Amino acid sequence: MTPFLDLDPDSGFGLHNLPYGVFSVDGGSPRVGVRVGDHVVDLSVLEAEGVIAAAGGGRAPVFGQSSLNAFMGLGPDAWSALRTRLQDLLSAEGSPALRESGTLQDKAIVALEDVAMHLPAEVGDYTDFYSSRQHATNVGAMFRDPDNALLPNWLHLPVGYHGRASSVIVSGTDVVRPKGQLKPSDDTPPVFGPSRLLDIELELGFFVGAGNELGDSIPVNDAARHIFGFVLVNDWSARDIQKWEYVPLGPFLGKSFATSISPWVVPMAALEPFRIPGEPQTPEAGNPAILGYLKQDGPRSLDLDLEVAIETEGMREAGTEPHVVSRSNAKYLYWSPEQQLAHHTVNGCNARPGDLMASGTISGETEDSYGSLLELTWRGTKPITMPDGQERKFLADGDRVVMSGVASSGDRRVGFGEVEGTVRPARG
Amino acid sequence: MTPFLDLDPDSGFGLHNLPYGVFSVDGGSPRVGVRVGDHVVDLSVLEAEGVIAAAGGGRAPVFGQSSLNAFMGLGPDAWSALRTRLQDLLSAEGSPALRESGTLQDKAIVALEDVAMHLPAEVGDYTDFYSSRQHATNVGAMFRDPDNALLPNWLHLPVGYHGRASSVIVSGTDVVRPKGQLKPSDDTPPVFGPSRLLDIELELGFFVGAGNELGDSIPVNDAARHIFGFVLVNDWSARDIQKWEYVPLGPFLGKSFATSISPWVVPMAALEPFRIPGEPQTPEAGNPAILGYLKQDGPRSLDLDLEVAIETEGMREAGTEPHVVSRSNAKYLYWSPEQQLAHHTVNGCNARPGDLMASGTISGETEDSYGSLLELTWRGTKPITMPDGQERKFLADGDRVVMSGVASSGDRRVGFGEVEGTVRPARG
Repeated sequence: MTPFLDLDPDSGFGLHNLPYGVFSVDGGSPRVGVRVGDHVVDLSVLEAEGVIAAAGGGRAPVFGQSSLNAFMGLGPDAWSALRTRLQDLLSAEGSPALRESGTLQDKAIVALEDVAMHLPAEVGDYTDFYSSRQHATNVGAMFRDPDNALLPNWLHLPVGYHGRASSVIVSGTDVVRPKGQLKPSDDTPPVFGPSRLLDIELELGFFVGAGNELGDSIPVNDAARHIFGFVLVNDWSARDIQKWEYVPLGPFLGKSFATSISPWVVPMAALEPFRIPGEPQTPEAGNPAILGYLKQDGPRSLDLDLEVAIETEGMREAGTEPHVVSRSNAKYLYWSPEQQLAHHTVNGCNARPGDLMASGTISGETEDSYGSLLELTWRGTKPITMPDGQERKFLADGDRVVMSGVASSGDRRVGFGEVEGTVRPARG
Repeated sequence: MTPFLDLDPDSGFGLHNLPYGVFSVDGGSPRVGVRVGDHVVDLSVLEAEGVIAAAGGGRAPVFGQSSLNAFMGLGPDAWSALRTRLQDLLSAEGSPALRESGTLQDKAIVALEDVAMHLPAEVGDYTDFYSSRQHATNVGAMFRDPDNALLPNWLHLPVGYHGRASSVIVSGTDVVRPKGQLKPSDDTPPVFGPSRLLDIELELGFFVGAGNELGDSIPVNDAARHIFGFVLVNDWSARDIQKWEYVPLGPFLGKSFATSISPWVVPMAALEPFRIPGEPQTPEAGNPAILGYLKQDGPRSLDLDLEVAIETEGMREAGTEPHVVSRSNAKYLYWSPEQQLAHHTVNGCNARPGDLMASGTISGETEDSYGSLLELTWRGTKPITMPDGQERKFLADGDRVVMSGVASSGDRRVGFGEVEGTVRPARG
């Protein structure tokens, strides 16, 4: 599939990808677009002109809205039909409707550099899992017992918790350093002030498409049809606030000040070619057998390269590129998105279009593939030396964090782009 | 203030209350109403007729919507202006605009028995606190250490966690028994099945009105101006699912299958006369000093009687009244709504109109004032004998739970009505 638009064949945003996002131009109203190379195709224009009416014959318009929720809710047949139609419209050999109409191209195609990106969905509920075995092991070893680092439930179910939906923000939004109760010493009362241990968490998130009714469940082998697409997630964390508050009800203010996501939602269909088996969840492989409702047919893991880079204020002023501090991969997740969604709904909890579910920190097996500074610096005992000579145990004000992801196999590349954000000082 | 409408002076729904709700008649579109005795006044009609235009001069209509969110977002001056206007319109001595217009009354006043109630708001985020000292002490004593029942952070901050917003349901909605992983024995692997330990939690919830921007905070002494009103909450809980899943990230599927709320939102202003000081949070009173951002001026507690009753299927068939299993009071909360909201936003987390925040289980100091079956039956060791001779440790299918609340002082009564729900068997 060769697109008719000019684009770098290695861009990761060719016709095999076609991620959806919500954008605006010059302060105009946000609408839905699809990214091709460094172009954004305005789907609200194609829809209004009847060029993509075929995607969902007779339904109400969904692309002039400021979120993807309506389109997400249409379900996998509508997603598939639109994807096929867009590949046809955008290819050098397909339908001439867009390719041969300069007028329509002028209306519907915008340069990426001219758009502002918005949150792709209204997030009804945000759930954060804890599905990387190495991460759970690292944290357990640091804070509990290195010999029994994984808690007894971890290999039986995808441990997760409810996060805060209101503070899910799109890439590029500044992150204000949170204030809260800190307990620098076990022997003295808590003090109030800005977090001193501000951290990142490298995660992969997915958006729910069509959901389920309250009281019903989504079976694990149907779950893929309920998953709309994927984004990168930086689940900013204040370790000192978290440590003091989190017993017995879990993380709260240590997380709820910001969760950043990448703006382009990569469709489930674009990632199918990168499925791999994943670690067997069987006694033969040394793992406990899992219960039937979590048994997923076929490959359940995803081969997706991930990277975390940090840029200090000094580096930015000197024009130094962000410094890569971790190279990881989504294949290090033990529990799949389908297992997460099946587990989440097995009690009858209703999922809705636009719900965001994130993997939890993804840490690989080596020290340079961990997904948080907590692990990369091992609680601050192994500081990272930055290119400008500064040391980092945790984030300093002015630091910019950039996470990126790309799946590739042969000449097929599917890019996630970046989720990035800059730390600003705590407010008054 | 005597209303011109007929109503029982002890109803708790006189002109001192005026709670807001979302209702529909005969399957029509939901809109906002206010309850007076056993009448519902349709505010969308009064708004359309210009009778309550004065409440927010020149603003867009807010009462024809299917949620209170837009009105909540207008803030305390708009709430106060409307409340004053409604008291005037509904009193026997005030404005004749409604009292003397039979035509307008026919359009705007509906009998309570003719309406269906809906969720009063679109809940963006639902947060559940853990603010009753006796409850936290009971749970700590049962599951941890009776001699150190309260965890070290409990008296320093209002412990809370994010709940599930999608499964917040209005009173009267059935509750399907959740399925999930249970671990009946420490020595055997988990099994899958319907929860055997289905429980209730008696709570008081509040809705956020105008919120705060991400990165900003709501100071504790401004917080009352951000609180729209209160509802009763039954935070259904599956104790067996919860026990196995909850370490280290807190309650998840043990709670997310259903949270019921009462349909009428009692305004903050209606409860001001029932403010009482609350337990001093000072070393002089034997408690740790609290940090400055939590220090609230004036009385912070609320004298609100609460009651929990259960009706088995057999009782229902025999026409027996629901059996009261607990009598409690909101004054047993250590942390106030204002402290909860100040704490929740102190890290810069943004609250939005329609966010629901609940108190956590409210348990009094005596065994008959506990707010959960877990505590009332002390982990099932002291079953409750129901009027039909059945025993209850936890809920059985068919059980209906009814929670009610009323604040009263002299001849002033402010009722919350009920939050009720019936347990249905687990599905397929």
